[in-house]
Amino acid sequence: MRGVVPPMITPLVDEYNLDLPGLKKLIEHILAGGVHGLFLLGTTGEGPSLSNKLKYEMVKKSCEIIAGRVPVLVGISDTSFAESISLAEHAAECGADAVVLAPPYYFPAGQAELLEYFEHLAPKLALPIFLYNMPSMTKVTINVDTLQKASEIDNIIGFKDSGGNMIRYHEYINAMRDKPDFSMLIGPEELFGESVLFGGHGGVVAGANIKPRLFVDMYEAAVAGDLDKIKKLHQEIFVFRQLYLCGQYTSSFIKGVKCSLNCMGICSDFMAEPFHAFREPERNKIEALLHKIKLLD
Amino acid sequence: MRGVVPPMITPLVDEYNLDLPGLKKLIEHILAGGVHGLFLLGTTGEGPSLSNKLKYEMVKKSCEIIAGRVPVLVGISDTSFAESISLAEHAAECGADAVVLAPPYYFPAGQAELLEYFEHLAPKLALPIFLYNMPSMTKVTINVDTLQKASEIDNIIGFKDSGGNMIRYHEYINAMRDKPDFSMLIGPEELFGESVLFGGHGGVVAGANIKPRLFVDMYEAAVAGDLDKIKKLHQEIFVFRQLYLCGQYTSSFIKGVKCSLNCMGICSDFMAEPFHAFREPERNKIEALLHKIKLLD
Amino acid sequence: MRGVVPPMITPLVDEYNLDLPGLKKLIEHILAGGVHGLFLLGTTGEGPSLSNKLKYEMVKKSCEIIAGRVPVLVGISDTSFAESISLAEHAAECGADAVVLAPPYYFPAGQAELLEYFEHLAPKLALPIFLYNMPSMTKVTINVDTLQKASEIDNIIGFKDSGGNMIRYHEYINAMRDKPDFSMLIGPEELFGESVLFGGHGGVVAGANIKPRLFVDMYEAAVAGDLDKIKKLHQEIFVFRQLYLCGQYTSSFIKGVKCSLNCMGICSDFMAEPFHAFREPERNKIEALLHKIKLLD
Amino acid sequence: MRGVVPPMITPLVDEYNLDLPGLKKLIEHILAGGVHGLFLLGTTGEGPSLSNKLKYEMVKKSCEIIAGRVPVLVGISDTSFAESISLAEHAAECGADAVVLAPPYYFPAGQAELLEYFEHLAPKLALPIFLYNMPSMTKVTINVDTLQKASEIDNIIGFKDSGGNMIRYHEYINAMRDKPDFSMLIGPEELFGESVLFGGHGGVVAGANIKPRLFVDMYEAAVAGDLDKIKKLHQEIFVFRQLYLCGQYTSSFIKGVKCSLNCMGICSDFMAEPFHAFREPERNKIEALLHKIKLLD
Repeated sequence: MRGVVPPMITPLVDEYNLDLPGLKKLIEHILAGGVHGLFLLGTTGEGPSLSNKLKYEMVKKSCEIIAGRVPVLVGISDTSFAESISLAEHAAECGADAVVLAPPYYFPAGQAELLEYFEHLAPKLALPIFLYNMPSMTKVTINVDTLQKASEIDNIIGFKDSGGNMIRYHEYINAMRDKPDFSMLIGPEELFGESVLFGGHGGVVAGANIKPRLFVDMYEAAVAGDLDKIKKLHQEIFVFRQLYLCGQYTSSFIKGVKCSLNCMGICSDFMAEPFHAFREPERNKIEALLHKIKLLD
Repeated sequence: MRGVVPPMITPLVDEYNLDLPGLKKLIEHILAGGVHGLFLLGTTGEGPSLSNKLKYEMVKKSCEIIAGRVPVLVGISDTSFAESISLAEHAAECGADAVVLAPPYYFPAGQAELLEYFEHLAPKLALPIFLYNMPSMTKVTINVDTLQKASEIDNIIGFKDSGGNMIRYHEYINAMRDKPDFSMLIGPEELFGESVLFGGHGGVVAGANIKPRLFVDMYEAAVAGDLDKIKKLHQEIFVFRQLYLCGQYTSSFIKGVKCSLNCMGICSDFMAEPFHAFREPERNKIEALLHKIKLLD
Repeated sequence: MRGVVPPMITPLVDEYNLDLPGLKKLIEHILAGGVHGLFLLGTTGEGPSLSNKLKYEMVKKSCEIIAGRVPVLVGISDTSFAESISLAEHAAECGADAVVLAPPYYFPAGQAELLEYFEHLAPKLALPIFLYNMPSMTKVTINVDTLQKASEIDNIIGFKDSGGNMIRYHEYINAMRDKPDFSMLIGPEELFGESVLFGGHGGVVAGANIKPRLFVDMYEAAVAGDLDKIKKLHQEIFVFRQLYLCGQYTSSFIKGVKCSLNCMGICSDFMAEPFHAFREPERNKIEALLHKIKLLD
Repeated sequence: MRGVVPPMITPLVDEYNLDLPGLKKLIEHILAGGVHGLFLLGTTGEGPSLSNKLKYEMVKKSCEIIAGRVPVLVGISDTSFAESISLAEHAAECGADAVVLAPPYYFPAGQAELLEYFEHLAPKLALPIFLYNMPSMTKVTINVDTLQKASEIDNIIGFKDSGGNMIRYHEYINAMRDKPDFSMLIGPEELFGESVLFGGHGGVVAGANIKPRLFVDMYEAAVAGDLDKIKKLHQEIFVFRQLYLCGQYTSSFIKGVKCSLNCMGICSDFMAEPFHAFREPERNKIEALLHKIKLLD
């Protein structure tokens, strides 16, 4: 796995139903940007907020629409071991290519417990696994040492780091330098350029829901070592991220992505509980920003 | 709801099956101690770690065994709105008396978002609701102000605070002083005595799985204002809690409860993933402590 | 040391000068309330914000005014070992009775480092020492185990806990139960009643700057085990603490104490940098509260 | 100010005395590496741990030895406004070129309070000022917005960010893009390369005490945009940093720098309280690492 793998939002009509036309438009919109894969049911995809039924449907429909054009990764993080296994089975049946697994996010595990958990779960999964470091949500950091040991497990093939700690990211990269086939992806899009420049393989960047080409361009520039272009795109990304800062809560980030897509006519901006779509004042800010960056005219 | 409401552990044979004989023994053991209710599928009950199927079975079997002898509260906290509703329906069908709801524990909500979430969810639930403050797991504190507003919602009838911040607990109590029917329960058993002394109504205390009478005695002493007895029991509770400190991770607490019950011949100590039962060295410490406090001879 | 030991504010005319008439009035006001000691240059006393010159003067003048009527404790916490020693020498010369020492608060020390620090510093000090746990300011908690070991050092005679964690406070008390001469004092006044009820010896309570009698009454009620009186005073203290919540920053607490004293005509409310006295809107709130609790008519 | 500005350690014979011969050797060692300035009394320089007397002497002696060969920056961060001013005056008299100021580090200030503090202090200082963001020690982050406003104050001429949050660093850089004369320096040396690549002006990097040329090389490579060299040096820096990880406490970092310099025969490794020099086991690790990276043969 190399390149840009957008963590796709889940277009919803309401708490119980997918916005299917929106989902189709969204997938086409993202694929048109030249991305290298798609990641379903991650944090940006509101995975944990959806009912099991809706998760299963989302995987099925998305795989049908994507139809093998790019690899599909499915988030199976759950506080329940059994539910993660079931969802992974379903993902395999639907034709997904890999699963993505963060630590169980209710009761925090120690590093040794975490490693055992990976060792117990991995053999039960039909698909290869990306580990997912997301301490702001899971309260647990996957330590460099734990990653190194986990990477010895048979079907663990990659890592996504959304920790936002660039020193630790460099440590992860250094620790895995001898395994060039192990995919190292980064989360915060603001660090995407430098992560690839210093040895990372790609990014799981939410902004690619809205403007996939921007991140594909950054990936290509970073691989090519084109510093001028990297700097230019880096600044664009920092303007672009204003879209995430229009609300006052942590949820502002996902709300901003969904609202932008809705303003652009792509899909519904309904948010699963406990959140709600941006209301008038925030929506106005989003629209103004979209005009500014030429995503609306 | 007044008094001692143990957050019951979930006896497991393995990841997929209840230890039913153990469950029966455990319920009889706890009820024999004179407790005032039972709380299923809380943090101590490993609720979030269990598959939906297992949760449903646990509620059904427990309600059958308890058979109305004490009120039953069922934890329905989930990151998915729909799953919380389903479990609450099932709990109502099984004859449970109330549900217990913590904030969704993946993506953290702001206070206004939290209040809306309670407002949206409450009308959809057949059973009355206890809110549950558990910031160490959910990353979100239910503010005093939010509790006060939420207590205006029709079927929200009580609050369980496991925050461990005694100043805030007093604030909660003060805020609800005009609603004496609203139940105020506290989590950490180390603070149980003083919480009742200063106006609380009871405790959701994990130690009551092991030695229910100790906590029932404390409740009665605190209600009676018997200071000498309270101090004596308070010190006993601080010896007792050594049972929770035998391991090195946060999970040491639940492992300690399950291991103690297993040593006492009551039920299995199997832990759901990502945890495992205490191994030899910790188990030896537990046994020594149980001898010391006369729960084993 | 038993009872109420107010952490006295430092009345200032400006950044460089004590408000001497205010200091005199303040000391008389506090002593008239029947307190059992006075603590200078603590957190409430803005100790770390004052120049060395001003600290020395504050100790000298206060000792002169107090003139042996109650024991005087002097805060010598500093990031520099040498400065702590010098200030302790000065305190001894001025006739103070003990010093109070928190961990150095810039670079955080580990527990073993902390214990060595106490072992190195204690023999160099002429006065007996109270250790001071103040993790919100120092970033370091003095662990129960560290306290127990430190209490073996010759002239360490007591402990002040401002951690606000009541479970840990009970652990400290339990750990020191065999040394009844070792003074155990608590910081947050909201927990003063229960701390004495459960074995503590007194409180370093900022509110006693404003209304010393309230806290002396609570101390006496708690020692006597008069539950009705304790509950009544406990509620008064929770009304009283509104005085600390009138501003929006952490500093609101000290500003509230100084503003109250100024409104009551006792001393200047000048705050050392980086803070400033409450401005009009907050001052109006303070005045309203003081009327409500009958400290102004 | 551009380039590499090592935060120099303070060589000590004991708690009260500078290791003067060591200081001379150290300064020559660092200057020989081609650095662009020297920063005294920072975190690495144990500034807050030293007595006032020792701080003054350190500034005086260092300025004499440096004798204008590079600009000298002096840390004046203090919890006391008056002490900061005095030290800045002394620095000016000794011929230093600028001062470095972190937020007062005991009682945490809000952003508005912080800005007022900068506004009040700046006019009282004879030397130009670098602000210093060091939240792990001060508990306070200087927000992007606060930096922008503070940069309007007359003699505030630069910023050193040791926050370690690379997203925020990019935001700082973007916020100051219109003021190219305002110096933007970064703290963690692990992020030095990318910070200069993306618009930063230099680094305050502790490793330059030990191997100044490594960081000067990195600076030059980053300014030149020589990606291959940057990557090579970046990896060297990550090997080099093992020197900081030989102990178990936060202090391991400074201990590692001092121990390395001592092993290299440059100066004493005495640490001011509450710390102590590395003992045998850690020293052995340091020696082995120094051999590995060819700083010892």
